[in-house]
Amino acid sequence: MNTDLNNKGSAAIVGVGTGLGASLGRYFASMGHPCLLGARNVDRVKEIADQIDGAVGTSVDATDENAVKTFFDIAEADLSPVEVCVFNASGRIRDSILDLDTNEFISCWKHSCLGGFMVGREAARRMVPRGRGTIIFTGATASVKGFARSAGFAAGKFGLRGVAESMARELHPLGIHVVHVVIDGGIGFDDSGALLDPNEIAKAYYELSRQGRSVWSHEVELRPWTEKF
Amino acid sequence: MNTDLNNKGSAAIVGVGTGLGASLGRYFASMGHPCLLGARNVDRVKEIADQIDGAVGTSVDATDENAVKTFFDIAEADLSPVEVCVFNASGRIRDSILDLDTNEFISCWKHSCLGGFMVGREAARRMVPRGRGTIIFTGATASVKGFARSAGFAAGKFGLRGVAESMARELHPLGIHVVHVVIDGGIGFDDSGALLDPNEIAKAYYELSRQGRSVWSHEVELRPWTEKF
Amino acid sequence: MNTDLNNKGSAAIVGVGTGLGASLGRYFASMGHPCLLGARNVDRVKEIADQIDGAVGTSVDATDENAVKTFFDIAEADLSPVEVCVFNASGRIRDSILDLDTNEFISCWKHSCLGGFMVGREAARRMVPRGRGTIIFTGATASVKGFARSAGFAAGKFGLRGVAESMARELHPLGIHVVHVVIDGGIGFDDSGALLDPNEIAKAYYELSRQGRSVWSHEVELRPWTEKF
Amino acid sequence: MNTDLNNKGSAAIVGVGTGLGASLGRYFASMGHPCLLGARNVDRVKEIADQIDGAVGTSVDATDENAVKTFFDIAEADLSPVEVCVFNASGRIRDSILDLDTNEFISCWKHSCLGGFMVGREAARRMVPRGRGTIIFTGATASVKGFARSAGFAAGKFGLRGVAESMARELHPLGIHVVHVVIDGGIGFDDSGALLDPNEIAKAYYELSRQGRSVWSHEVELRPWTEKF
Repeated sequence: MNTDLNNKGSAAIVGVGTGLGASLGRYFASMGHPCLLGARNVDRVKEIADQIDGAVGTSVDATDENAVKTFFDIAEADLSPVEVCVFNASGRIRDSILDLDTNEFISCWKHSCLGGFMVGREAARRMVPRGRGTIIFTGATASVKGFARSAGFAAGKFGLRGVAESMARELHPLGIHVVHVVIDGGIGFDDSGALLDPNEIAKAYYELSRQGRSVWSHEVELRPWTEKF
Repeated sequence: MNTDLNNKGSAAIVGVGTGLGASLGRYFASMGHPCLLGARNVDRVKEIADQIDGAVGTSVDATDENAVKTFFDIAEADLSPVEVCVFNASGRIRDSILDLDTNEFISCWKHSCLGGFMVGREAARRMVPRGRGTIIFTGATASVKGFARSAGFAAGKFGLRGVAESMARELHPLGIHVVHVVIDGGIGFDDSGALLDPNEIAKAYYELSRQGRSVWSHEVELRPWTEKF
Repeated sequence: MNTDLNNKGSAAIVGVGTGLGASLGRYFASMGHPCLLGARNVDRVKEIADQIDGAVGTSVDATDENAVKTFFDIAEADLSPVEVCVFNASGRIRDSILDLDTNEFISCWKHSCLGGFMVGREAARRMVPRGRGTIIFTGATASVKGFARSAGFAAGKFGLRGVAESMARELHPLGIHVVHVVIDGGIGFDDSGALLDPNEIAKAYYELSRQGRSVWSHEVELRPWTEKF
Repeated sequence: MNTDLNNKGSAAIVGVGTGLGASLGRYFASMGHPCLLGARNVDRVKEIADQIDGAVGTSVDATDENAVKTFFDIAEADLSPVEVCVFNASGRIRDSILDLDTNEFISCWKHSCLGGFMVGREAARRMVPRGRGTIIFTGATASVKGFARSAGFAAGKFGLRGVAESMARELHPLGIHVVHVVIDGGIGFDDSGALLDPNEIAKAYYELSRQGRSVWSHEVELRPWTEKF
């Protein structure tokens, strides 16, 4: 990839699978942002990146502090200063409160919330000195509604929302835009529009990254037209 | 105005002054939507519309049922089928609950909420048979927070939010997108970004009207980067 | 009724039918508050009051400013200074946004929100000089969720919530406790507990009126154990 | 302590210091519930319990799964079946997102959220077979508002709220009442009422544990009359 002629900041996207993550990579790359795509499954993320002009794939475990730092170092060294960061990873666990295993509860939280904290913090550390940048956290219905048999996912997603809101209050006045997006429905390609089209979500994320600083949204919900709410 | 070559649906904007309303007219017209701008102050709204290529100004009192119907009739007869409707009017009254006058309380509600209901209803009546269209209500911080000495404005703005949410639940599955925008801060032109730039708000409204139906936002907050929240 | 020996402030309850209103009257009277029960249906409210030791029934139309003032004048002249006020009335209308009649929309709002404003204001005018008192507004699920085909009820109930919140912010520091109770379910007597028992609601209202000023609740939800939320 | 004559269920209270925890112990014991008070600081909790007729103090680290189980075993073996459980512990950490240490972030979450999950789960495991009981989680302003420089506390308190809400949706229909209390202000003894009096909070918790199942509150805010909100 040749980014010499490109003076746009990079997009660092953590938690990239074949769904939303891949769409985010394609969209931001198509708009001129060199993209670093990260995931635990390194083979898959490299395969995804290989199909996107302007994207590079690499391994990152968002629950590993050093891996997160390295991920941002790569983005800045190989691509360009990170201008957009998306945290898109999460754990998920469903079980009755009576049966929920402690280690699975902790693991779900680490992937949903702790990883978001560490990714957001590293992004902020790089963006604050420059006074610009956008950090987007992918939330879910479970970020604002604690469903039955879902205490672990609720802990992770509510917690991530708290981190995002705290970061927004601290970082907005420093010029860093922090967004929490509530994905209220299933993601997928479906002609009826009953599932959130990942390419449309990616477009929404891009527009959020382009909002003028006098009209920043902090929390945005995206929902199919047919979804009950 | 010649709209013969233009097959885009019209934008019907109620509550147009020199601030946000004028910016909405300019933006939607610049994107090819013929615009009907309405306000109680007919001289001013005509003056505003005269400066916008693709916009027409007319008198409308949103609290008058027949006037609202006539407004939409004009939009559809003179321009094109209404595709976007923005309700941007409101009353405002500030006083201690001890001193608040009953008639002023009622008047504030009529301009903030009743007008929104009637505008939204007329828009829906035209859009539902076509299965498409976007209806946007302009809210305020007071839509979600009842401030001291502001019971009248709270009644109007909370009420409008209730109307918008009810309409969204009924109309989304019919293909009509209903949005409630919380303007969280003062509107104005200000280089520091401490006020919401009305041109930026207009851009946000336009993007909302273009959201694919698989990713509809219902409630969106817009807030200056420096605003406390 | 003999209130000579009773130096407790009175409870003024507006919107009294055979359900919650009657239970409120019984409960507050049983705790020593002389009660003035008001409703538009004067025969029924007098019949209800006649069965409660310590309660008087009278006609009041909460949408009539002078009637509301007279109601409070009666309470203070015939019983004792109003210490607790409950606004329990509401209108209700269900219809598609496409078919909702303007006059019915306005009427629903007047009974749900305007009446609450006028009752709350008159209560506040009497309580503020004394620096004490509790004002309770009865809300519904529809106060916080705008249901499809329910724009009129949403306007009224959201609006009442805005009035209550605004009053709380102004009046709490003056020593007047303002509460908005979200009744999340149907009210009725039912052994299974699937309906909110009006006597239990009345007990909850009484306890709210007794909260020490260092631990005031402003918004409280009450919901049957079996209710989905 | 002699509980032979007492057939009331016990109250198991985790996170007991000299403030709210001690007041909870005194109040529930005074209402006839034998109380097991737990805290990491075993000397202090035993000293507190020694001053309460009907209370026993013991060591418990809420972040240690086995310690939590043992705590409930003691309550049931030495006192009586647990009828009320209060989780009152939390970690706290304040720092810029730029400086927040990973291990401190994790530790704060463990004490605020993981402990709450494990205490709530053990309580539920004992209560569900009996079809009765109340589980109360102590929240804070930070449970619903992510403050600047408070991402760690936000993660913990938002997360705990998610756990509580999820548990309520699962356990209410099984007869177990789950409550999340938002303590919106500072706790302390203060004649002006500007701080939440812990004895008044304890009374509110007791009343919540006594709500009939047809009128259960899930989330309750308690706030001093002078507190801004």
